[in-house]
Amino acid sequence: MPIKFQVITTCPEAGARRGCLTTSHGQIQTPAFMPVGTMGTVKAITVSELQELKYPIILANSYHLYLRPGLEIIARSGGLHRFMNWEGALLTDSGGFQIFSLNRLRKLDDHGVTFRSHIDGSTHYLTPERVTRIQNVLGSDIAMTLDHCPPYPCSWEKAREAVVRSTRWAWRCLQAHEYRGQALFGIIQGGVFNDLRKLALAELVKMDFPGYALGGLSVGEPKDLMYKTLEGVTPLMPSGKPRYLMGVGTPDVLLEAVRRGVDLFDCVLPTRIARNGRVMTAKGYLTIRNAAYASDTSPLDDRCSCHVCRNYSRAYIRHLFNTGEILAMRLATYHNLYHLAQFMAEIREAIDGGYFGRYYREKAPELNNYYGSVV
Amino acid sequence: MPIKFQVITTCPEAGARRGCLTTSHGQIQTPAFMPVGTMGTVKAITVSELQELKYPIILANSYHLYLRPGLEIIARSGGLHRFMNWEGALLTDSGGFQIFSLNRLRKLDDHGVTFRSHIDGSTHYLTPERVTRIQNVLGSDIAMTLDHCPPYPCSWEKAREAVVRSTRWAWRCLQAHEYRGQALFGIIQGGVFNDLRKLALAELVKMDFPGYALGGLSVGEPKDLMYKTLEGVTPLMPSGKPRYLMGVGTPDVLLEAVRRGVDLFDCVLPTRIARNGRVMTAKGYLTIRNAAYASDTSPLDDRCSCHVCRNYSRAYIRHLFNTGEILAMRLATYHNLYHLAQFMAEIREAIDGGYFGRYYREKAPELNNYYGSVV
Repeated sequence: MPIKFQVITTCPEAGARRGCLTTSHGQIQTPAFMPVGTMGTVKAITVSELQELKYPIILANSYHLYLRPGLEIIARSGGLHRFMNWEGALLTDSGGFQIFSLNRLRKLDDHGVTFRSHIDGSTHYLTPERVTRIQNVLGSDIAMTLDHCPPYPCSWEKAREAVVRSTRWAWRCLQAHEYRGQALFGIIQGGVFNDLRKLALAELVKMDFPGYALGGLSVGEPKDLMYKTLEGVTPLMPSGKPRYLMGVGTPDVLLEAVRRGVDLFDCVLPTRIARNGRVMTAKGYLTIRNAAYASDTSPLDDRCSCHVCRNYSRAYIRHLFNTGEILAMRLATYHNLYHLAQFMAEIREAIDGGYFGRYYREKAPELNNYYGSVV
Repeated sequence: MPIKFQVITTCPEAGARRGCLTTSHGQIQTPAFMPVGTMGTVKAITVSELQELKYPIILANSYHLYLRPGLEIIARSGGLHRFMNWEGALLTDSGGFQIFSLNRLRKLDDHGVTFRSHIDGSTHYLTPERVTRIQNVLGSDIAMTLDHCPPYPCSWEKAREAVVRSTRWAWRCLQAHEYRGQALFGIIQGGVFNDLRKLALAELVKMDFPGYALGGLSVGEPKDLMYKTLEGVTPLMPSGKPRYLMGVGTPDVLLEAVRRGVDLFDCVLPTRIARNGRVMTAKGYLTIRNAAYASDTSPLDDRCSCHVCRNYSRAYIRHLFNTGEILAMRLATYHNLYHLAQFMAEIREAIDGGYFGRYYREKAPELNNYYGSVV
């Protein structure tokens, strides 16, 4: 088996679980957040810094890498790990989300999808087989099936259509999947409809994937509806396999999803907001460009012990943003990734220590207060 | 004395010298190149990386910092060292060069200069006294006098006017200079006119500065003319004081100037070209965006042992530039700074080892070949 997953302990009160995912590029203690390295680099950050931040796994996007630099160059470089000099584990997205969100000009049939590149307008045809082949070549540790990811809101009929198509495509991906060092995860669609989520899960479970992802959430639906959807489906997901909620990266949602039994997460949020000058602190978001911080010599977060908070002031970082310095984005990105890494470590400790229920009750209202109304 | 300068050894054949400049923020082995951190950050690079690259001194621009974030914020932060978290030595430029090169709307009188900010068009009036005060507040280890830096070409009459004004201003800077931990260097103007350079030097030497800079060179004049100008003036500069050639950072010119007895250099070139995808190698410039490197798995420079060359391929770095990734600029900047640091270390070793003459004869034609016709 290319990966091994073990549930170490489960919270007696809630569905939260502590697990360990073993890949041929290292172990991942779960619940874990995976930073996104769309183009084969987590924006503004080096692989050494990711190691320093103790991130054992990151995500890359097949769709983007397929368009630039193209598969041939990555293949010649010996795969994506070597191309980007990353020794940790890699998960590649199938491109489904990008094809459905970035490209207006697409033609969908049951066999595959024709789309125009968002870069140069060139036409591409992707099928489940081709998407699987792309990820085989990239050589990620975990590949994803091609899914049809509809936007929110979406009617039951449309959501069902996406489930049926995603399920068929998942099967074809599985048949086409070749690379032995790589695990292929199935993606559960179904919008916010409980019956459709169950249907999608049941069909995928028959195919016996080594892991299951929840797609089509965190696409604009109210948070309550996302939590309700999770509650309906996660208890039915195979308990011995990793559960991955795609596109989630705000602390409040991470905590709620962990409580409902999710193991893996990814999101561009912490790195994207950092580049815009927004950082996560123990008291929620801080917009560093605010004039209030112009001569504030305190760190971004006085409860944070990251390299940035130990060495730089808000006044300095604000100055760097105001003058368009690259260092601004470096420092803010590093801090946000540290903040989330610490947060996930805290969650894991709480589950390990058997006090996750209490931790959740204390933390959830606080996080809801800080992050509840914003994305 | 705020600084101490000692000439350790001099090349028996040429004017090249090995020196040691001691500041209250560490020692600088000369000849040395100083990276430029215009806004209080060497662009794309952290202070830890500068230490790793073994740069003991960097430059910052009073003019830029005076406009943004403004003196008050830096003063409240405890000076520029603390503001930017830099433990090494700092040299601040007076702003003369910026006022004369960035601002079209300026009014010059003997008392000072009125200019409009290149950022927001606001009007500012700077005098030698004010420029000195600004640098006192910044708290740099070495401050520069306010000079009138004319562009090239420049008539003898205009160049003489600039010398007279710069000399008067230098005197006023010296009178206004207060900060005890800081050394103030005088700037020699005079264009490419030997008699004017001598005049400027003689006047400044009377004021007994702890160091002397050559300004108004590397402003567009042919390299031969710069070398001839250097030959005319450096032998007359006080041998016990550091000699600083402003605005030079190409390997060929560095070598020629060291041979003519210069100790210190600064230039935005290595960091600026890096951000545009141009790197320095043992074989001259390499433009990484060239299609030729699309699937080239070799390092930027196979003779370089920097972190970037040990870990990343040309194909990967080219991909990062093509996709606008911040990491592209980080890696290229790091490499260029490493390249220049190594080059200066090689020069120092050659002088120390007593073989600089031979080194120069071997190296100069090669560098002239790589860099002679380009800037």
